[in-house]
Amino acid sequence: MRNWIVLTLIAAAPCLAQAPADGSVPASSNIMGSQYPRINPDGSVTFRVQARDAQKVQLGTGSVGDSDSGLGRGPIDMVKDDRGNWTLTTKPAIPGFHYYWFIIDGVPANDNGSETYYGWGKQCSGVEVPEKGVDFYDLKPVPHGDIRIRWYFSKITGEWRQAYVYTPPGYDSSRDRYPVLYLQHGAGENVTTWSKQGRAGVILDNLIAEGKAKPMIVAMDTGYATRIGATPVPSPTGGQPQIPNAFEDVLIGEIISMVDSTFRTIADRDHRAMAGLSMGGRQTLQITMTHLDKFAWIGSFSAPPIAGFDVKTSYDGALADADAFNKKVRLLWIGAGTAEPRIHDGAASMHQALDKAGIKNVFFASPGTGHEFQTWRRSLYDFAPRLFR
Amino acid sequence: MRNWIVLTLIAAAPCLAQAPADGSVPASSNIMGSQYPRINPDGSVTFRVQARDAQKVQLGTGSVGDSDSGLGRGPIDMVKDDRGNWTLTTKPAIPGFHYYWFIIDGVPANDNGSETYYGWGKQCSGVEVPEKGVDFYDLKPVPHGDIRIRWYFSKITGEWRQAYVYTPPGYDSSRDRYPVLYLQHGAGENVTTWSKQGRAGVILDNLIAEGKAKPMIVAMDTGYATRIGATPVPSPTGGQPQIPNAFEDVLIGEIISMVDSTFRTIADRDHRAMAGLSMGGRQTLQITMTHLDKFAWIGSFSAPPIAGFDVKTSYDGALADADAFNKKVRLLWIGAGTAEPRIHDGAASMHQALDKAGIKNVFFASPGTGHEFQTWRRSLYDFAPRLFR
Repeated sequence: MRNWIVLTLIAAAPCLAQAPADGSVPASSNIMGSQYPRINPDGSVTFRVQARDAQKVQLGTGSVGDSDSGLGRGPIDMVKDDRGNWTLTTKPAIPGFHYYWFIIDGVPANDNGSETYYGWGKQCSGVEVPEKGVDFYDLKPVPHGDIRIRWYFSKITGEWRQAYVYTPPGYDSSRDRYPVLYLQHGAGENVTTWSKQGRAGVILDNLIAEGKAKPMIVAMDTGYATRIGATPVPSPTGGQPQIPNAFEDVLIGEIISMVDSTFRTIADRDHRAMAGLSMGGRQTLQITMTHLDKFAWIGSFSAPPIAGFDVKTSYDGALADADAFNKKVRLLWIGAGTAEPRIHDGAASMHQALDKAGIKNVFFASPGTGHEFQTWRRSLYDFAPRLFR
Repeated sequence: MRNWIVLTLIAAAPCLAQAPADGSVPASSNIMGSQYPRINPDGSVTFRVQARDAQKVQLGTGSVGDSDSGLGRGPIDMVKDDRGNWTLTTKPAIPGFHYYWFIIDGVPANDNGSETYYGWGKQCSGVEVPEKGVDFYDLKPVPHGDIRIRWYFSKITGEWRQAYVYTPPGYDSSRDRYPVLYLQHGAGENVTTWSKQGRAGVILDNLIAEGKAKPMIVAMDTGYATRIGATPVPSPTGGQPQIPNAFEDVLIGEIISMVDSTFRTIADRDHRAMAGLSMGGRQTLQITMTHLDKFAWIGSFSAPPIAGFDVKTSYDGALADADAFNKKVRLLWIGAGTAEPRIHDGAASMHQALDKAGIKNVFFASPGTGHEFQTWRRSLYDFAPRLFR
């Protein structure tokens, strides 16, 4: 049995002897002292788990639709050695952050060596594969903003909720007021996701330090909300009945006023942006287009294509009058990764339809990345500098 | 294969059909929508995991030394039903927060239905068992402070580190300066622990709202640090060589000045306290006693007994002159839970030795709780109101 003396020492004594001398390094996404997963010089990843009595161990990867998971399409069989360690080395991985998990005799289980990251509707293992020559999301010796964890009570849901709010460097020492970007995660993720796996704060710190982005507040929240007393309604896709997501009402009715009353914001539409990834991109288009009195800057990162998108009729006709829209909306930004073909093509189609209708918009394609955070980090890096100009 | 449409809906559609109508409720420590573990009306906990192909599934619990884990002493066998669900209902549990994990065919694995909490040297499942009639760590409609996640660079370790800093309600709107409590976690835990499983911010919010504690800043950090180029030295307990923990140097040489230069603190010893739990309690005693020029308020929560503690000689003789010590130190607080006998008795012995030597101190025994967070939440609730008076 472990006791407190052992516990006192474990984290200070990582498994020094186990590290192979092959140029591989522990992933930066591991917990303190964990040697696996390891990143190999060719960008492949070696996973390992000890499971002496298991019959079958596999690696699960976060493949979504036709998007490459970055690690290959799971589940991938792992191989057992005579000491009970199951190992797998992937193909050279797409750079960036990849969700993963082990499947031990059929049970999805996190890797105890990994930090956990909220995704896939649960806390999930994740591995960070560096991109050579790219440092826009690395910690650097520049002034850093804070991520503030803030409680607020939602009357709509009847629950305490948390917002994660990035305040830019210098916020505390100045009396300035700042514009606000509302930045939303994808399906199965939550309030922690953009700052943790997305590194939103670090990306903004670097952009602001280089003078590329205006200092801004970034408000992140959980994109799910259940109205008090809500009852399930028939599913639009024919599945089991669903409880409607009241996030739009919480954002418009509660979060914006909480942020404006808590932080030194410039509380008007010209200084308020919204962007989101995947489900959050879809929410962003829906919410901003139907509340153009509140938002002037719009970013859709890898939103799933809208069925039957039509410039004249979608979003209650918000786009129908191109001149009026162009006058009102300062930025409409649409992006996707080239390794998520269906979403990329949907985004490109929307961009072309908007162009054809004379609606100003920016289209961004992230080369070689899929429905994953490397696409969205790059999206934020391209999107944020365009804001509040 | 799951796709983004499924993902869009999962979190909004928790498993409504699975909840038994026996008065049990999902633990508040679960992820959004997760029905298990469940808290039963008698305070017992029901755990469940689906593992159709597993041969043996057990519940692992965080028993430390002779302390009760709150859930019973693991591993405890779980029982499989004909649908592949393994289930276990514990005895009525000790109230509070308990770490746990499943052991699936010998492999420790987190519960996908639980939020994760850093403990036991990894991200760990945890279950919150409410204590009837006790609400000092519940979210209430009172003003709330923020937890700020702050990056800083340590020259000692050569790495970026994070501090979690609680700023009290009103910090932003006032120009006041505040005293600081440095609050440290236990072995195998990290910078996130006190605010997440410890609910330090919520406890302070409630105490401040009731006028029971002075508004203060609480700075939390990871109590591990490895000096650049440090090499392993022989273990004092005869185990494998260890890398010395440089946390004391980082706290004294870097963290305090970072906090004082970043936040509106009152930067003197009369307005600086330190407390910690378990390993953090031991660190607190070591660091404060040998730096009485920096700290005037000291809290040791369930610190493991110091071998050969002697009032005259321990801590370089800091306690040898009772009058001088009493004049200098405004509070020396020592506590433990009654269900962690060895640590409780060690703390009580220290308290008696201090009393006998004429050194003012406060002793606190948390009834019925072990080496767990309920002891430390109660400790903070007793300790914080005594500070900065």
